[in-house]
Amino acid sequence: MTAELICVGTELLLGSIVNTNGAYLAEKCAGLGLSCYFQTVVGDNEERLSMVLKTAMERSDVVILSGGLGPTEDDLTKETAARVCGRALVLHEPSREAIGRFFEERGLKPTDNNWKQAMLPEGAVALDNHNGTAPGVILELDHTRLILLPGPPDELRPMFEEHVAPYLARLTSQVICSQTVKICGVGESKAETMVKDMIDAQSNPTIATYAKTGEVHIRVTASGEDRKAAMKLVKPVVKELKSRFGNDIYSTEEETTLEKSVVDLLLANKLTVTCAESCTGGMLSARLINVPGISEVYKSGVVTYSNKSKRRFLGVKKSTLQKHGAVSRQTAEEMAKGACQMLKSDVAAAVTGIAGPEGGTEEKPVGLVYIACCVKGKVTVKECRFSGNRRKIREAAVSAALALMRGCILEYYSKVTFGK
Amino acid sequence: MTAELICVGTELLLGSIVNTNGAYLAEKCAGLGLSCYFQTVVGDNEERLSMVLKTAMERSDVVILSGGLGPTEDDLTKETAARVCGRALVLHEPSREAIGRFFEERGLKPTDNNWKQAMLPEGAVALDNHNGTAPGVILELDHTRLILLPGPPDELRPMFEEHVAPYLARLTSQVICSQTVKICGVGESKAETMVKDMIDAQSNPTIATYAKTGEVHIRVTASGEDRKAAMKLVKPVVKELKSRFGNDIYSTEEETTLEKSVVDLLLANKLTVTCAESCTGGMLSARLINVPGISEVYKSGVVTYSNKSKRRFLGVKKSTLQKHGAVSRQTAEEMAKGACQMLKSDVAAAVTGIAGPEGGTEEKPVGLVYIACCVKGKVTVKECRFSGNRRKIREAAVSAALALMRGCILEYYSKVTFGK
Repeated sequence: MTAELICVGTELLLGSIVNTNGAYLAEKCAGLGLSCYFQTVVGDNEERLSMVLKTAMERSDVVILSGGLGPTEDDLTKETAARVCGRALVLHEPSREAIGRFFEERGLKPTDNNWKQAMLPEGAVALDNHNGTAPGVILELDHTRLILLPGPPDELRPMFEEHVAPYLARLTSQVICSQTVKICGVGESKAETMVKDMIDAQSNPTIATYAKTGEVHIRVTASGEDRKAAMKLVKPVVKELKSRFGNDIYSTEEETTLEKSVVDLLLANKLTVTCAESCTGGMLSARLINVPGISEVYKSGVVTYSNKSKRRFLGVKKSTLQKHGAVSRQTAEEMAKGACQMLKSDVAAAVTGIAGPEGGTEEKPVGLVYIACCVKGKVTVKECRFSGNRRKIREAAVSAALALMRGCILEYYSKVTFGK
Repeated sequence: MTAELICVGTELLLGSIVNTNGAYLAEKCAGLGLSCYFQTVVGDNEERLSMVLKTAMERSDVVILSGGLGPTEDDLTKETAARVCGRALVLHEPSREAIGRFFEERGLKPTDNNWKQAMLPEGAVALDNHNGTAPGVILELDHTRLILLPGPPDELRPMFEEHVAPYLARLTSQVICSQTVKICGVGESKAETMVKDMIDAQSNPTIATYAKTGEVHIRVTASGEDRKAAMKLVKPVVKELKSRFGNDIYSTEEETTLEKSVVDLLLANKLTVTCAESCTGGMLSARLINVPGISEVYKSGVVTYSNKSKRRFLGVKKSTLQKHGAVSRQTAEEMAKGACQMLKSDVAAAVTGIAGPEGGTEEKPVGLVYIACCVKGKVTVKECRFSGNRRKIREAAVSAALALMRGCILEYYSKVTFGK
């Protein structure tokens, strides 16, 4: 079964945004066993969209369109699809009510053009949108199927997971299953080398590595006649990866992020946590606090950007700052220790570094970051050298801090090993 | 003059990588005054690539292909293009020499298939590759032109800048310029309605709106025979937008983010700033601190996730928390005031809300967020109701807090108006 993607949007054609929906949908389709041979980007233009859509409908079993479902004049994906398929647009009462509720709940008034979003092609199945006002659409035709999804990734992704993935899974007879082994603290090249023999020998399951900031994910994918058969092929490969990467694997669960794995460790060991951040300026706390249930373990944290605040909130010694500087192994250590004491916490992570673009010297260049983690008084400090722009350096520092926290807690409670 | 992009690569079709070449080339073409109406992604497959290439050659003046110039069996972009154009592949001696040098300089030995990269379509212009072994290709045909570029961005981008941009600039007489008007505190639908008459009447310049989290961007794009002529058409439209949106416009500069506009206001008025965050847990500080030069105005901030920490670090009254709850107008107000006092700052922003997924009640549902801003003792509190998942609610709260900070500072210093 073949699928084809059409991403609609002038901002894609102008290069104002990168087509992440294309990559997301392509990856999902591949995971569902659909062969995806073409992706097209086209603007909000009826004639050209019609042309592209007709070509796609002729050659593919499923055509997925994203974008152009908004309330404005520009948005004409639904209108164009309806015309190409010879279907009228009719009012879909449940969608009209959902749009009304969406605005009411927010104490807002819909504008006239919002109601346009409740008009759907005749015979279409509406897909609920819990994160916006545009419903998705599935339209079954004689030889093909159209699936229309909203452009914003925060609306498209949940809608795909909830409605489209189960629908597509029913269409295909082969079941594709995959499991992702998530690794932190190992570089991409090293990870690649460690599994090269497995990749070279792969057929079913396949093995693919993906580099993320501070992480490497290895996805093992197998096809079989049912889920059980496919997972039976996946499991021994995952087991082999576990034996090769050991404790550097933080999870094999789809939903588990690195920060969630840290929070799970804190909860399991009943440890409170705090963060003392300089160059990352709150990003580390923010990532931890994105984990639901964090309130059990995280009470407070500080952003200590100035030297004075490092002294006041963390008790970093004036002499340490004078002798070694704010970006130093010694300051990072005192920050983490001080955070544990002054913020009354079992675990503390501290980050101090030079994120640039200014402030670098020959001795301490932009990208130099010290990360410290204190677990019940025992401090570990790591020196890191990151590259890229200010944002990239800060993101890399946060990932490295999470990996360090995980490592330090595991080491302290050496009985706690990666979940068998 | 029209251009069209074809990005070749199985890893794009599988979603293993995001198509950043597409966005890069699209933006560059737009900047050179080429109208780009289609982008296609296709795999390393001769039949399908031929199909896509023929369609593109029929409808576009310039077809730019990226990827598939490598030395392996899979790489067949050049071979396919030559066949479609009826040109033989012939050895290009300077490219053969360059490939030999490339390996020699690195102390490496070329494999047999590397020499394949020196074979070019008859009559083609070779484009030097200083960062790899695959030369680029320009092939002029009767009604169209093909430009073949290597897939790795580190090779594609310098080659585009050095060879392709000057070539395309010579082809087009028109220059395209654009300016973006960035608005905060106005919803997308409302903004659209406010400019609907302008969009309906548009031709040159064109006007397009883009929704961002908590922001709307309106891009005005015009073509003219040179930069001056194009900008002369852009300016009156930007002026009209300024008169319609007034102070809600935070910038018309490409590089200026909302957080930078806030930091600029703080610097201009010599105001120090701090943040007291509950549900956003450091994200607001993190966004401010992404602005280089922030150290002049931001010294420290706190993440006060627990009630106790709101009392300890911000002096929020126990009775306020008991009577109104942590997520309330009153607590937000005391957080902002307390942050100014206890963290010795001229301006403070405070955020407290329910980011979910748990913790919502009928009276205080998930998505309810109170944002407060204190400027030299004067506090403004805003009640917001956001939707989406935990991350989305938190991101929306941060953007709303930045917009509120901007508004409050502008109001306090009413002499400071948006730069003319």
